[in-house]
Amino acid sequence: MQKVIDLRSDTLTKPSDGMRRAIADAVVGDSMYIEDPTVIELESYAAKIMGKEAAIFVPSGTMSNLVAVMAHTWERGAEILLGDCSHIHINEQGNIGTIAHVHSRTLTNKSDGTFSIDELVSKIRYNVDSLFPNTALVCIENTHNICNGTPLPLEFIDKVCEIAKSNGIAVHMDGARIFNASLKTGVSVDRIIKNCDSLSFCLSKGLGCPIGSVLVGSKPFIQRAIRCRRVLGGGMRQAGVLAAAGLFALRHNIERMHLDHKHAFMIASAIANQNKSFIKIDMKNIHTNIGYIDVDPKWMTASQLQMRRKLNLESDVLPSKWVSKLQPEYDLLLI
Amino acid sequence: MQKVIDLRSDTLTKPSDGMRRAIADAVVGDSMYIEDPTVIELESYAAKIMGKEAAIFVPSGTMSNLVAVMAHTWERGAEILLGDCSHIHINEQGNIGTIAHVHSRTLTNKSDGTFSIDELVSKIRYNVDSLFPNTALVCIENTHNICNGTPLPLEFIDKVCEIAKSNGIAVHMDGARIFNASLKTGVSVDRIIKNCDSLSFCLSKGLGCPIGSVLVGSKPFIQRAIRCRRVLGGGMRQAGVLAAAGLFALRHNIERMHLDHKHAFMIASAIANQNKSFIKIDMKNIHTNIGYIDVDPKWMTASQLQMRRKLNLESDVLPSKWVSKLQPEYDLLLI
Amino acid sequence: MQKVIDLRSDTLTKPSDGMRRAIADAVVGDSMYIEDPTVIELESYAAKIMGKEAAIFVPSGTMSNLVAVMAHTWERGAEILLGDCSHIHINEQGNIGTIAHVHSRTLTNKSDGTFSIDELVSKIRYNVDSLFPNTALVCIENTHNICNGTPLPLEFIDKVCEIAKSNGIAVHMDGARIFNASLKTGVSVDRIIKNCDSLSFCLSKGLGCPIGSVLVGSKPFIQRAIRCRRVLGGGMRQAGVLAAAGLFALRHNIERMHLDHKHAFMIASAIANQNKSFIKIDMKNIHTNIGYIDVDPKWMTASQLQMRRKLNLESDVLPSKWVSKLQPEYDLLLI
Amino acid sequence: MQKVIDLRSDTLTKPSDGMRRAIADAVVGDSMYIEDPTVIELESYAAKIMGKEAAIFVPSGTMSNLVAVMAHTWERGAEILLGDCSHIHINEQGNIGTIAHVHSRTLTNKSDGTFSIDELVSKIRYNVDSLFPNTALVCIENTHNICNGTPLPLEFIDKVCEIAKSNGIAVHMDGARIFNASLKTGVSVDRIIKNCDSLSFCLSKGLGCPIGSVLVGSKPFIQRAIRCRRVLGGGMRQAGVLAAAGLFALRHNIERMHLDHKHAFMIASAIANQNKSFIKIDMKNIHTNIGYIDVDPKWMTASQLQMRRKLNLESDVLPSKWVSKLQPEYDLLLI
Repeated sequence: MQKVIDLRSDTLTKPSDGMRRAIADAVVGDSMYIEDPTVIELESYAAKIMGKEAAIFVPSGTMSNLVAVMAHTWERGAEILLGDCSHIHINEQGNIGTIAHVHSRTLTNKSDGTFSIDELVSKIRYNVDSLFPNTALVCIENTHNICNGTPLPLEFIDKVCEIAKSNGIAVHMDGARIFNASLKTGVSVDRIIKNCDSLSFCLSKGLGCPIGSVLVGSKPFIQRAIRCRRVLGGGMRQAGVLAAAGLFALRHNIERMHLDHKHAFMIASAIANQNKSFIKIDMKNIHTNIGYIDVDPKWMTASQLQMRRKLNLESDVLPSKWVSKLQPEYDLLLI
Repeated sequence: MQKVIDLRSDTLTKPSDGMRRAIADAVVGDSMYIEDPTVIELESYAAKIMGKEAAIFVPSGTMSNLVAVMAHTWERGAEILLGDCSHIHINEQGNIGTIAHVHSRTLTNKSDGTFSIDELVSKIRYNVDSLFPNTALVCIENTHNICNGTPLPLEFIDKVCEIAKSNGIAVHMDGARIFNASLKTGVSVDRIIKNCDSLSFCLSKGLGCPIGSVLVGSKPFIQRAIRCRRVLGGGMRQAGVLAAAGLFALRHNIERMHLDHKHAFMIASAIANQNKSFIKIDMKNIHTNIGYIDVDPKWMTASQLQMRRKLNLESDVLPSKWVSKLQPEYDLLLI
Repeated sequence: MQKVIDLRSDTLTKPSDGMRRAIADAVVGDSMYIEDPTVIELESYAAKIMGKEAAIFVPSGTMSNLVAVMAHTWERGAEILLGDCSHIHINEQGNIGTIAHVHSRTLTNKSDGTFSIDELVSKIRYNVDSLFPNTALVCIENTHNICNGTPLPLEFIDKVCEIAKSNGIAVHMDGARIFNASLKTGVSVDRIIKNCDSLSFCLSKGLGCPIGSVLVGSKPFIQRAIRCRRVLGGGMRQAGVLAAAGLFALRHNIERMHLDHKHAFMIASAIANQNKSFIKIDMKNIHTNIGYIDVDPKWMTASQLQMRRKLNLESDVLPSKWVSKLQPEYDLLLI
Repeated sequence: MQKVIDLRSDTLTKPSDGMRRAIADAVVGDSMYIEDPTVIELESYAAKIMGKEAAIFVPSGTMSNLVAVMAHTWERGAEILLGDCSHIHINEQGNIGTIAHVHSRTLTNKSDGTFSIDELVSKIRYNVDSLFPNTALVCIENTHNICNGTPLPLEFIDKVCEIAKSNGIAVHMDGARIFNASLKTGVSVDRIIKNCDSLSFCLSKGLGCPIGSVLVGSKPFIQRAIRCRRVLGGGMRQAGVLAAAGLFALRHNIERMHLDHKHAFMIASAIANQNKSFIKIDMKNIHTNIGYIDVDPKWMTASQLQMRRKLNLESDVLPSKWVSKLQPEYDLLLI
């Protein structure tokens, strides 16, 4: 059978056999009564490796970030500042406004996922006038999906946190792909988020779990998050079946994400090396496991390419010779 | 080891070995791309047995009902009518108001979970005056948790639907325990909800799944529900691992819920037959798998009993002789 | 020209000549800059006669109560308790839910506008479980519109406040017609609301102003209320033109509301004394300026009567002989 | 007494004697029953001069725009596109999100208040994916406050409307200062908004009314707006006292706004001509009645200048010789 690599998203990863066994053998309880030992273990383990007091397991990255925003904007009239290319601003049906009832004001994202510190400073406002909302939160994204999967520079993160802290504002990191950032920069995840108030990361992307994200932060923050998860319907019963996959992933799958970066680079190189005019990729923009391809619409429109969804490695634009080198543990490489 | 029965809730059920195997072997895909074959199969199967066009799998009963309310109140200014003892009115942190932005007006629940049809008729209003919201939805609950787990009479359901339809209003059934109602009354689930616009039912209660609920209704309704699930963060990736448990439960665990009713009756009888003044139960109120116990606070307060949480069958107030007859497949019987 | 009395509502009152002169001569400024001297004077005067620290002028009773609910439920997940016949529960398009995002749970109103203190106590909840919202506010209505315009007994008000205070919950009084209550009971307005955290009262009903309500409470509460008024669009510029009417009313029109009570009683008596089977009124239910008429639909339906809107005093069901005694300063008496 | 010109805002205008007489003599009724003849006349007159079917009078520009957004985003999950320097995005406490529950996505405003049509086209989305909200509305601002009070070019407005219409999206114009735009460009107001679905304009700025704004649009739109105004608490009773001022202003005060432009130009010139290094103004940015001053913080910070609030014409930086030429009917000129 022909080998197929699905290049659409790292959300397409599937559980390995080892992970499936962990799921099947999970010890469970009702996690709404805080009685699921595997969920408790996952939350405890996640908090520890992230260097925060507490953690909460939720069914999706969408909910993890939404819960974080809600728990940080506990009072009426809050405003958040975030990059104009942020995943949670552009996607998620705008749930920061429609569900969390919070105003969003954007900062112009640079190509590396950062924004101007001066712009940040100029847009913070608190009790200036009843005409304005109160800035309560800054959100940053690491790696930054739309900005080519770039890991944020540590100095940028620390500077944002410093500014925020001095203004009494919290910082939340949408770290759906925080391990990609850590692997790329060589900075540990706990150091990356040391000065951030909260972090959301996904188990269901490169880590290979079927379902779930984890939000970490202080104990009072996680207490509020528990209420937010509940009100949204994110409370799950014997969630240990999913948490077991999460624990397995955190213990076995982090290091292997190096391969995703390597594979992404290989595929991108293959495309770039073809020197075709109708399909292009800029190797300078390949940082982690994400790559954006420019397609000449005369050959195939982007949406046509998306419709096809899967690139057949034996034909099409990809040269067959490097394909044989690919032996991914998972079915997916995102480009 | 001593046998322990946890009487707090049927949400405490744990997956059986067969179900765990089904979970471990599940064929999965990214259900946000509508590519998880097991989720597709579960939704298709659920729609079929419920006699509706379409279905959607969600992580909890809380979300299933919330999504239903949102999808039925698509326009601004909507109001729902529901029993004052409804689970979704009293619990769920009031998310109909706080998250769905919908006004709730209650109808007085009778002890059998119904309410007065006259009261329903008198409270429906649409475009009467800009002073009033517009009634868009009636919610009923079957079985009715707080009303002693009673199954709603079919004539009541049909009458509510008739009134609603003639007023252009939808009817949603919170059927978290619809199979308990069906088993008790002998009426098939599809007949029960024949005239209802939507139904939510739980896989994670008596059906024994670790996680998940299903919402069924018309295709356009489920299309809106998909958007509501997404905005709340209820979209899960390889949800097939959970859907596999759901399919297993719908195929193997419905009939065995008879046992839950039998066991609940047995335990209730045992308590009643003790003729103790400090712990009482009214056998007239034992209908399905739910029973409410009156406790004399001089012996033990209700919250103390809740703190203990588990009744040891070898001692305490339960007579040991009938305990030996209990061989529940699951660890839980709710009383 | 025939004299016509409009019996629909005391919102129909029109400004007298004296009030119109006060409006025309008002010294004004931009009240969003807190520079309108007449608004400042009105707010200061209102706070003083109500015995509270501060006040805020708003364009309507609807907004006054909405702002109060918002300012008392400053944190996420709040619930309010209020009578099931409360104006703000039944009317206002359910804006407590749809605009303020707060869950409402009702207490059964008795015919005198009160509710059971035991029911109140049993429904208060705070941080019990993530399943529940947190009770943050109790709302009472005085006089109670739907309950026949009854003034609330002082002991009831004080008891509600005592229970609320001991549970850390605020009490808001919808006192749209607080002066009617005060005149009827002989208790001063400041004493009535002594233990309440906030009060909303209307200038535009029996007090005869064209527009406006006032909300009073503590300084921090009014600071939050200023933000709530602004976000809803209730901030008005040279609002002194309206505040001047309010000051005029508070200085000249309170005492004359005795007449409204007298007239309501006269009209009700006239109807009752006719002993007509097709139009009835129960004199025991005439307390202040409000009366509800029972109409035999064979003679005329309630909505037909509403469609006609105005009763011609020279004909119809009202006996002409007592009409000549009516010399209302305003055009309206509400029955 | 020294003549003082308050340069902070055109919201500071005060009613003239003629307007005060109109207010005092207003024929009124209860406008919630749609029985206030003066409000009806104002709404009818406003609709006529704007070339739209219907109009609604509201207490503020804040509410007028909020009501417009709500009435255009009648269904769940809507998104609006608007300039990143829009008044309703930066100010109003973010009520599009916090009160109307709508997501905002911004388009980069150019210095003339326009934005790129290409950017507009690229950001429109509808039913693309459940990940995205649906674009329902584009908002434009004319004159554009933060962009130096520039009137929008007619071709820009028409192009935005054409794009929107072809995508099934509505266009709302925040025309708080639409008459300033019309006077400056010589294009009639009805022509300016011919292709827009709705317009909000303020009576309380250059038109000199104490309170109020008007929203115009189609009949079904205004029907929805009536409900939105009510739910926010913007329904006022005998609003004819304010509508009378509005009618007076629309009949007498439009033409005189030429003077505001002239005065703004004079004052700006005076500042510019001083050639002071510590206070500057760019004459190219003086378009209508708005001007932004650059202040050297070593001389005085912007907030210090704001604290002082009023410039004394006899001293300070303004040359006395041109002051004598100023004979404004109103007390204010905004610079």
